[in-house]
Amino acid sequence: MDFNTFFRDQLDSLRNEGRYRIFAELERQAGSFPRAGHYVDGERSGTVTIWCSNDYLGMGQHPAVMEAMHEAIDRCGAGAGGTRNISGTTHYHVLLEQELADLHGKEAALLFTSGYVSNWAALGTLASKIPNCVVLSDAGNHASMIEGIRHSRAERHIFAHNDPEDLDRKLSALDPRLPKLVAFESVYSMDGDISPIAEICDVAEAHGAMTYLDEVHAVGLYGPRGGGIAEREGLMDRLTVIEGTLGKAFGVVGGYIAASTDLCDFVRSFASGFIFTTSLPPAVTAGALASIRHLKASTAERLRHQDRVAVVRRRLEAAGIPVLENPSHIVPVMVRDPVLCKEISDRLLDHYGIYVQPINYPTVARRTERLRITPSPLHTDADIDHLVNALTEIWAEIGLKRAA
Amino acid sequence: MDFNTFFRDQLDSLRNEGRYRIFAELERQAGSFPRAGHYVDGERSGTVTIWCSNDYLGMGQHPAVMEAMHEAIDRCGAGAGGTRNISGTTHYHVLLEQELADLHGKEAALLFTSGYVSNWAALGTLASKIPNCVVLSDAGNHASMIEGIRHSRAERHIFAHNDPEDLDRKLSALDPRLPKLVAFESVYSMDGDISPIAEICDVAEAHGAMTYLDEVHAVGLYGPRGGGIAEREGLMDRLTVIEGTLGKAFGVVGGYIAASTDLCDFVRSFASGFIFTTSLPPAVTAGALASIRHLKASTAERLRHQDRVAVVRRRLEAAGIPVLENPSHIVPVMVRDPVLCKEISDRLLDHYGIYVQPINYPTVARRTERLRITPSPLHTDADIDHLVNALTEIWAEIGLKRAA
Ligand SMILES: Cc1ncc(COP(=O)(O)O)c(C=O)c1O
Ligand SMILES: Cc1ncc(COP(=O)(O)O)c(C=O)c1O
Repeated sequence: MDFNTFFRDQLDSLRNEGRYRIFAELERQAGSFPRAGHYVDGERSGTVTIWCSNDYLGMGQHPAVMEAMHEAIDRCGAGAGGTRNISGTTHYHVLLEQELADLHGKEAALLFTSGYVSNWAALGTLASKIPNCVVLSDAGNHASMIEGIRHSRAERHIFAHNDPEDLDRKLSALDPRLPKLVAFESVYSMDGDISPIAEICDVAEAHGAMTYLDEVHAVGLYGPRGGGIAEREGLMDRLTVIEGTLGKAFGVVGGYIAASTDLCDFVRSFASGFIFTTSLPPAVTAGALASIRHLKASTAERLRHQDRVAVVRRRLEAAGIPVLENPSHIVPVMVRDPVLCKEISDRLLDHYGIYVQPINYPTVARRTERLRITPSPLHTDADIDHLVNALTEIWAEIGLKRAA
Repeated sequence: MDFNTFFRDQLDSLRNEGRYRIFAELERQAGSFPRAGHYVDGERSGTVTIWCSNDYLGMGQHPAVMEAMHEAIDRCGAGAGGTRNISGTTHYHVLLEQELADLHGKEAALLFTSGYVSNWAALGTLASKIPNCVVLSDAGNHASMIEGIRHSRAERHIFAHNDPEDLDRKLSALDPRLPKLVAFESVYSMDGDISPIAEICDVAEAHGAMTYLDEVHAVGLYGPRGGGIAEREGLMDRLTVIEGTLGKAFGVVGGYIAASTDLCDFVRSFASGFIFTTSLPPAVTAGALASIRHLKASTAERLRHQDRVAVVRRRLEAAGIPVLENPSHIVPVMVRDPVLCKEISDRLLDHYGIYVQPINYPTVARRTERLRITPSPLHTDADIDHLVNALTEIWAEIGLKRAA
């Protein structure tokens, strides 16, 4: 078999479908977010405004976060130097796990190298090690959860997205003696819809099932201390596991679960993806710690964020740009065609200095291709004007349909 | 089912086997490696000398690495702010991938959040997406490779550890038309033995199989530019994929593969574990870049490292401490009992201020429990004296058998 021909053919078919990915090469400018340098062919070609970052609150340039990272580097150096078990647990890791447990009102928390790994390793371990565990998985769940569940080889049933009644039907069809785990998210990142956590917990509890909630797109952003949607709705104690990331609203990198001491200790002791990997650098854990502490105490970023989101949404709707309605901070502009989606993104970048990556299959379903706009507290009124004008002009130039 | 009782029972059985893991809480001191603060119950209790770090060369405290991280934080802030595709590709990521491709004499390289994820995602993607791919996996392969291969659900055959003849037999038994992938490591991290790369490549080539080499414990350490064992032996061009980490000899965190442009582009385009996760922070990529560049040009660290390893090994052997022979930088002191292993480790820590984590099942096979000692260029003659004296005293106190 000629491997390279196979690879090239597969890549060509992506190109033919208009969904071959070209990464924008950027250099964010600390102190000037959402501004970033843009590189073309390795050369800096100008400055752009980023409208699609998941550093939702701009915490990546917060002085307290940067200062904590600088300090940890000077104190402890670059990397952790080992796995958590073999010389890679620092004082910062321990403090950060305590802080995360407190954030979610849980006994304990466990760090992973990313949110992806936390989902993959925690779900993979729970579902494979609990004998005969059956997983109930929301149809909209993120790739990292799907892969973790798949990896466990546990029996799995998909329930209709955000549908507690369908979950109830699926659970009722199972042997009541089997251990069960319900896995879902709070904010779904591509549509920005929010799950009915209380209703899902009602159903899960009625069937004696554990609940596993991914709050990756909610931690830092919702709840009085940034504990997520479950905090906002007073539901944290009803969830068996809350999973989150340090790489989005907290502005750094890494992932975690928060749960009972025994559950965290169990995953700590049995999860291959936790055990056999170098732990996060001290500077990363120190930066995340500073970010969480700041957002526990400060609501200014959350309020300004919600304000910016509301303004962007209102302005786009007024201009007839088709925005998907939802109750969260994510503003999906629906294009519903991969080639057009890329073309709009290219025009925004080339003519307006606006960077919004096109979102195509497999990140979203085919025919739901979109520009996923993420306003931040740092986007000014002038930035919003510029974005809305640019999209309005492009919509007219290409002759795209307007929303009612 | 009472989940917490299940978790507790499982944890109790680890305790009964003597392999429940207690993480040492440390704080390395930049500028004073291998010294670190040691915390007990959250309070700093003293200073220890680390003898089990995988920051093999102490690059984690190298001024060029720390300086590059500081600079990147000041320029770009804390995190990358997105996945590689959605605003998370920085100029540093691109430069680092070019540097890694050059290091291994390959057309391209692809970064992952860790070495674990690079193995899991690259092997998982290649083996699942290449139709009917059969994987030949060395019996000693790391958990991350095993999980990636398992995840792919490809047909898999285990060949005897470091045994090209067994590999040949296994390959000969397969349909010659099937695509095949041979996965192995260069330096095996627990025994410190080195694979016969040339012989394995001979066999693989004879059968038209791709080769995938994990050089996680060799990059930075071997070869004139730190390209690993394959560089040292002039074999880099015979390997289809070389995989490595940025978290061990390079002293930071992260992982990568280096291979042809098409193969990297294929994995970039199809690997869930690459696509759906926040990319490494700019400071991490900048630090790794500085580390690789330094070790490409400087052999001082490698020479001093090899010298320290030889001295430790010679001194331990002279003292009758049972050391596993091998041709690498890893010095395994064999205890062959999990409870004793932990006891020796505790005594080293409590009475001598020496930290060497006990290595128990499942990291190594049962009855091969050990203290895995990793000398670095920064360990002084006095440090070595202290280590050898401590082990000698403990061996006498506990009445352990001496080597011949
Ligand atoms: C719902 C969800 N869960 C988990 C992840 C993974 O988190 P991380 O980026 O920290 O790997 C993501 C996105 O990246 C996500 O959207
Ligand atoms: C052989 C081998 N491959 C891969 C890994 C994973 O690398 P990382 O620590 O960067 O995740 C390790 C150890 O952690 C290893 O020993």
